Amino acid sequence: MTKAGTTKRVAVRRKYVYDFEEGSASMGLLLGNKGAHLAEMTRLGLPVPPGFIITTEASRHYFKTGQFPPGLEREILQHLRVLERKMGRKFGDKDNPLLVSVRSGAPVSMPGMMDTILNLGLNDETVKGLIKQSGDERFALDAYRRFIQMFGSIVMGVPRDKFEEILRDVRRKYGVEHDPEIPPQGLKEVIQRYKKLIKQTTKRNFPADPYEQLMMAVRAVFDSWNNERAIAYRRIHGIRHDLGTGVNVQVMVFGNMGYDSGTGVGFTRDPATGEKRLYAEYLPNAQGEDVVAGIRTPMDIAQLKATMPEVYEQLEQMAQLLERHYGDLQDFEFTVEKGKLYMLQTRGGKRTGMAAIRIAVDMVREGLIDEEKAIMLVDPNLLEQLLHEQFDPKALAQAEKLAEGIAASPGAASGRVVFTADDAVEWAKNGEPVILARRMTSPDDVAGMHAAKGVLTSEGGRTSHAAVVARGMGKPCVVGCRAIYIDYDRKQMSVNGRVIKEGEFISIDGTYGNVYLGSMPTIDSEIISVERGKMRPEDSQLYQYYATFMKWVDKYRKLGVRANADTPEDAEIARKLGAEGIGLARTEHMFFAEDRLPHFQRMILADNPKERAEAASKILPMQRKDFYGLLKAMDGLPVIIRLLDPPLHEFLPHTDKEVKELAERFGMNPEEVKAKVERLRENNPMLGHRGCRLGITFPEIYRMQVRAIFEAACDLKKQGYNPKPEVMIPLVAHVNELIITRNDVVEVAEEVMKRKGVRVDYLVGTMIEVPRAALTANEIATVADFFSFGTNDLTQTVFGFSRDDVEAKFMAHYLEQIPGKDGTPIFLANPFEVLDQVGVGELIKIAVERGRAANAKLEIGICGEHGGEPSSVMFCHDAGLDYVSCSPFRIPVARLAAAQAAIREKRSKGSGQKE
Amino acid sequence: MTKAGTTKRVAVRRKYVYDFEEGSASMGLLLGNKGAHLAEMTRLGLPVPPGFIITTEASRHYFKTGQFPPGLEREILQHLRVLERKMGRKFGDKDNPLLVSVRSGAPVSMPGMMDTILNLGLNDETVKGLIKQSGDERFALDAYRRFIQMFGSIVMGVPRDKFEEILRDVRRKYGVEHDPEIPPQGLKEVIQRYKKLIKQTTKRNFPADPYEQLMMAVRAVFDSWNNERAIAYRRIHGIRHDLGTGVNVQVMVFGNMGYDSGTGVGFTRDPATGEKRLYAEYLPNAQGEDVVAGIRTPMDIAQLKATMPEVYEQLEQMAQLLERHYGDLQDFEFTVEKGKLYMLQTRGGKRTGMAAIRIAVDMVREGLIDEEKAIMLVDPNLLEQLLHEQFDPKALAQAEKLAEGIAASPGAASGRVVFTADDAVEWAKNGEPVILARRMTSPDDVAGMHAAKGVLTSEGGRTSHAAVVARGMGKPCVVGCRAIYIDYDRKQMSVNGRVIKEGEFISIDGTYGNVYLGSMPTIDSEIISVERGKMRPEDSQLYQYYATFMKWVDKYRKLGVRANADTPEDAEIARKLGAEGIGLARTEHMFFAEDRLPHFQRMILADNPKERAEAASKILPMQRKDFYGLLKAMDGLPVIIRLLDPPLHEFLPHTDKEVKELAERFGMNPEEVKAKVERLRENNPMLGHRGCRLGITFPEIYRMQVRAIFEAACDLKKQGYNPKPEVMIPLVAHVNELIITRNDVVEVAEEVMKRKGVRVDYLVGTMIEVPRAALTANEIATVADFFSFGTNDLTQTVFGFSRDDVEAKFMAHYLEQIPGKDGTPIFLANPFEVLDQVGVGELIKIAVERGRAANAKLEIGICGEHGGEPSSVMFCHDAGLDYVSCSPFRIPVARLAAAQAAIREKRSKGSGQKE
Repeated sequence: MTKAGTTKRVAVRRKYVYDFEEGSASMGLLLGNKGAHLAEMTRLGLPVPPGFIITTEASRHYFKTGQFPPGLEREILQHLRVLERKMGRKFGDKDNPLLVSVRSGAPVSMPGMMDTILNLGLNDETVKGLIKQSGDERFALDAYRRFIQMFGSIVMGVPRDKFEEILRDVRRKYGVEHDPEIPPQGLKEVIQRYKKLIKQTTKRNFPADPYEQLMMAVRAVFDSWNNERAIAYRRIHGIRHDLGTGVNVQVMVFGNMGYDSGTGVGFTRDPATGEKRLYAEYLPNAQGEDVVAGIRTPMDIAQLKATMPEVYEQLEQMAQLLERHYGDLQDFEFTVEKGKLYMLQTRGGKRTGMAAIRIAVDMVREGLIDEEKAIMLVDPNLLEQLLHEQFDPKALAQAEKLAEGIAASPGAASGRVVFTADDAVEWAKNGEPVILARRMTSPDDVAGMHAAKGVLTSEGGRTSHAAVVARGMGKPCVVGCRAIYIDYDRKQMSVNGRVIKEGEFISIDGTYGNVYLGSMPTIDSEIISVERGKMRPEDSQLYQYYATFMKWVDKYRKLGVRANADTPEDAEIARKLGAEGIGLARTEHMFFAEDRLPHFQRMILADNPKERAEAASKILPMQRKDFYGLLKAMDGLPVIIRLLDPPLHEFLPHTDKEVKELAERFGMNPEEVKAKVERLRENNPMLGHRGCRLGITFPEIYRMQVRAIFEAACDLKKQGYNPKPEVMIPLVAHVNELIITRNDVVEVAEEVMKRKGVRVDYLVGTMIEVPRAALTANEIATVADFFSFGTNDLTQTVFGFSRDDVEAKFMAHYLEQIPGKDGTPIFLANPFEVLDQVGVGELIKIAVERGRAANAKLEIGICGEHGGEPSSVMFCHDAGLDYVSCSPFRIPVARLAAAQAAIREKRSKGSGQKE
Repeated sequence: MTKAGTTKRVAVRRKYVYDFEEGSASMGLLLGNKGAHLAEMTRLGLPVPPGFIITTEASRHYFKTGQFPPGLEREILQHLRVLERKMGRKFGDKDNPLLVSVRSGAPVSMPGMMDTILNLGLNDETVKGLIKQSGDERFALDAYRRFIQMFGSIVMGVPRDKFEEILRDVRRKYGVEHDPEIPPQGLKEVIQRYKKLIKQTTKRNFPADPYEQLMMAVRAVFDSWNNERAIAYRRIHGIRHDLGTGVNVQVMVFGNMGYDSGTGVGFTRDPATGEKRLYAEYLPNAQGEDVVAGIRTPMDIAQLKATMPEVYEQLEQMAQLLERHYGDLQDFEFTVEKGKLYMLQTRGGKRTGMAAIRIAVDMVREGLIDEEKAIMLVDPNLLEQLLHEQFDPKALAQAEKLAEGIAASPGAASGRVVFTADDAVEWAKNGEPVILARRMTSPDDVAGMHAAKGVLTSEGGRTSHAAVVARGMGKPCVVGCRAIYIDYDRKQMSVNGRVIKEGEFISIDGTYGNVYLGSMPTIDSEIISVERGKMRPEDSQLYQYYATFMKWVDKYRKLGVRANADTPEDAEIARKLGAEGIGLARTEHMFFAEDRLPHFQRMILADNPKERAEAASKILPMQRKDFYGLLKAMDGLPVIIRLLDPPLHEFLPHTDKEVKELAERFGMNPEEVKAKVERLRENNPMLGHRGCRLGITFPEIYRMQVRAIFEAACDLKKQGYNPKPEVMIPLVAHVNELIITRNDVVEVAEEVMKRKGVRVDYLVGTMIEVPRAALTANEIATVADFFSFGTNDLTQTVFGFSRDDVEAKFMAHYLEQIPGKDGTPIFLANPFEVLDQVGVGELIKIAVERGRAANAKLEIGICGEHGGEPSSVMFCHDAGLDYVSCSPFRIPVARLAAAQAAIREKRSKGSGQKE
């Protein structure tokens, strides 16, 4: 404990520059990722060219003030002196010059944020020293030429193609085809013309002073943090904009000093399949940029093995060393200078879902890591890739891509394109596979979406109506395909002048967001093939890895995982994928079927409770069949059935023709039907007459649904099954709403069970989806057996956002606009995709705390879209929920995220105890 | 402190019955109001016939179980014995019978909940005893006849008019016109036929056993608590449904024993004017029910003075005693039995606004009460009555009333009726006074409402769009006038078969909810006449009382009071009425004026920021003029100006004709305009592209508004005024939204002030109107100078309610439906009228706490409709707000409610210290 007045405040001088020897892998936040790993490799004794790192803190100071922090330049010079001593060379020396590379390096890997500057330190004098050092005039002049080009474009902002023009000119003059053939005289000309170009374009001379070059380069790295490309990258990947970047200054080594030199990149295992083998490419006599630029085709690493076996062996050893040290797949860069190997970078390697689980499992088996570490290594989102249908790769190779949109609901589908929901229903009835293409979808389109194989929209984002509903239905969906113009009047769409008419075949890939012309065969994923019994587990290596991995996952996971599923088919596959019940069965989708909608409409339009009850009784047998199937598929597991939720007018006919048909069918007056439809219309249906408000004002609807649920459950029970229905009341804002509807549910349930002579265990609970329900959870929990957070609606009401409108009108702007100087847009992530932990999450915590205090047995879950998003799942674990519920193909994602959350919690507790 | 295990639990025998001597005025919650005051009068030594009270607790037990609590009957009998001893009579005795009255009495006065039963204890035997006691056979038989009639209808449910039929029959038979003329023989016939009627109708005999009579009567009182009339009364008056009722059993005294007997009711002062004089009515030779029934016309109390001066004097003394004792106007009932005065009831008297303040002030001057007590005596809502225009009483006396609706916005107006907003604008332009009649209004009608003298709707409730906007504009408004059918096609309305065509004069009284045919002159209220300088204060006694009273109010009040006002005229009168600034000036209403709307539309439809800025610049001078007027009217006081809030499409043309006109005016393509209008349309505009979301995506609009504010402020400052603009950003959900808009405001403000060469003090703050803003108040407060709770929108988002839709579709149902057996409807009050303290209030408290913690200087107020509702104002005081803001005529209401809250707080602290 500190007594006031007894502590001394000492002005600590900040350290902004670290030698590689001073850093380590754990210092990524301060040094940036690249720098921290260069330091780590240095500490491991790997051959890393010496260097130092300017910290991210220095960059943050620069962002705030537009100035380097005080003393930074002096510190840089001190560390430069250290490099000089190590190498026996001097920066700016005309006889034995030290050359360095300057690279950015953020705490989170951001490929392509800023290009690298190589060969810094060269000028008309030092280039002579490089000639001496290397004994190769052409090499030295080429290095100088490259440096001016990089510096001129990256630091001084001269368009890159201007340099290329000059180079082209000189090649023509000397009659050569490739740059390496340009003679030294030609290179000298290039250098002169480059410098002139810079002077003309920027009104500044190319800086000859190496110190000036270095400071300008550092400043350019800092500035690159806020270029558009970097901001966009961070936005897409949810990276904080206030992290800042480190700058790595490293002694140059050259892969372009002849054919005993070269450069390459590699992975310690195959990042596509996960196979254990050195997976690398190598380009002799080249600098790193040549590999990246793709000018020359790199060769397989086998070539290196053939030409320089001892270097290859050393590389293989180092790869193994790195993997063992980091316990993860590594993605590394290396350079060979005159037969000597240097390591220039290492980082965790990106991989496919298939590779991710194979590597994780293999590494455990090899004893490199334990199960916990293996679980933490796999990005949960990758698992979904493994499940969806995909186009046959052979067909895909020949397909004509029409456009790219946003991948909104994964999977692949081909079909004849139609432009209205009615047409989709009509064509599907005739056995045609259809793709429904709309500008945007609305609830009116749900029947058409149901009939279609896939959905395409030209507007909207990942959380637009089309996207959400398609994901709920598990149908492939591509949205926001702005290149496509849909002409409803002519029933056709056009893209880049190409017209596709109604009935033509198109294919959409909802996993990657692509739209193709024509039809393509699709194939089930291996895992789904096995789960569906179409393939034996032992025939699928992938499945075996998957099964092993998921077994580990479930060992560590504490959070339950349920499925959002409305049909027996969805429930079955969800169960195979690990669902421990259904967290949300939406009953409204059941009403859009052609044989039901008219009866449902009749029910809505009834004049009095008696008529309404009569119409409801017509739907009862169909609903009973729905619930029978669902409860049977989930035999022995809980099934939460949400009673009718959406505003009634969504179900009503809208066109005069539809009104007339309906009126005729039930002998009603068309004018009256029209007037009723009009009366049911609402200004803000999202906040209107829906959910339990309907259940209270028109109790016949809920009573029919409850009757259907319990008749189905009782029938199953009698047949030896163990149905576990849980009835969920939507949109409760006040405890009294739940009291009324709960009383109705219990009354009907007991009456049915008495009549059927059998008892079924059941629960009655509520969605928590408006703020008042969360705030008064203590009251509501006294009459609820369970809570389920409807975070879609909760996000809407907490923000005051209508999802459809917000997505259409300004969400994109909010994800881009930068309010302050710290580089943060209004939203780091779309709150409809990633749970807003600060606002919505706060209400969830309040509701959990108050609800549990009032009812210790309360079962709490989440059934919004967020239930399958990894960071949100982790939040749910931390908030103490009992389970998350998500669409079937997200279940493995949620299981893994839940396991990771449990492990993270265990670790943080462990470290907490040590302190 | 209690050690576990050491306390004994003793089964306490509950006491369910209290003699009058055992009770007091402070026991109202247990005994009911009437009983508590009977007890109090007994303790004061006033002549009260003896009696006892069955507690409200007993009734609550009955509501829960359907049974009397155990032991209740025995307790009743014990107390009956006490009465017998006191009176020397015996219950059910045929020689000297004890008769009692049975009356209900709830903790809150609920007139007309249950009728009284008099003369209980009579039967064929005891009536003979009554004849002996009174020596008046006719009197005794008539008492018996009355008892059977009351008991039969109230307790046994026989329709009242069946009894009246028999009475009519007998009168005819005996050829008499009035009941008192029926001879004893006739009364005997009536009694026999009454008993037969009861037997036929109920299949039960009229109970001869007085004990059975008593228990049935008690049960009937209990049951009356849940009759429709009582439930409706409680709903309208916001009384809790679980209070329960007491039952008063009291020895009968008779005002109908000849002309030295009689009965009356009175007030200790004149309840209409407040004048200090005994204000009572007296009916000789009558029972209380005769006064209430209005069969005979009571005479002025002067009559009593003339006939029984000593009784009159005693009555006057008792009135003074009661007033002195209670320190409030009393409303009492009395009976004279053979020259002896009995007091039967006293309670606080209902009074007009005028009387309320006069009585309060006079009583302080008379030394009866102190200022604090005086302030607590006046119902804040009464003050509004005193302010609004009213119809000239002479004209009103002769007016033909067309219909009654809901009094939505007080005041009186006459005009020609029109049925569309466009017509209202058109006619008003030609100088015609118009009343706009619509089924419902929408934002499209605002211009028409602005042009009209008053608004009438056939649908909607007190918080419908029409009501809210009209109150905001201070225009008289009657809504929900269901008897009226409006035919838009024919441009006419009909009510009870009477057709009123467009252009005919009608008059509406928004204070009382009446609609009249024809035109009537209106008069300003005295107080407004004085405030407007049309009358000298010294010529208005009312004004002098008002001024004195409000001076006291402001002495005790701690909460500030500001006005919601959009025009200089409103601001001026608000200031006169005590506004300490403007809490909400809505800028959107300013755009509906005919000369502005097209420019505003042009701005909305602009293709790019430049066009938008150009269009904005056209509106700038007009906005500047608006703000100039407002700031000048509130010179020296803060004026919060809210930047544009509603969705843009509210301002757009909708019909093809309007689109065409607009397109022509600005040389645009009508098809394009139409398409843009379509694109701006939203599914849920309440949650859509509005508020700061507009300010961020179209910054030119806010920048124009801010420029106008500061140009106006600077001009005023130069002219020697002291403008204090406070710029308010609406609909902030995330701190970043406020950062962006605040930066814009500051930039423009500083630029204007620099250009004008003058500095103006200003603040920048935000509405707190979505839950996320409240939950993250700690973040938002760091960049806000003030918070203002927009409780209208906050109520919408906390409940997930769209006000318009909810009011139209199910609010009425929610205020009536009873979920449990405890008699509570879903909502006790409409949360759009009375602040929901549990849900919305919880968020307000969270926001105040977090906001103040982050910014100690934060100024916090409320500007929703609730700012003028007394219980909500008191909540705001308790929650620690700095001020409330409300429409001008509610300002005295809010001032008084704030003073009452402060006094209540002081008292509860005082009593807390004593304990």
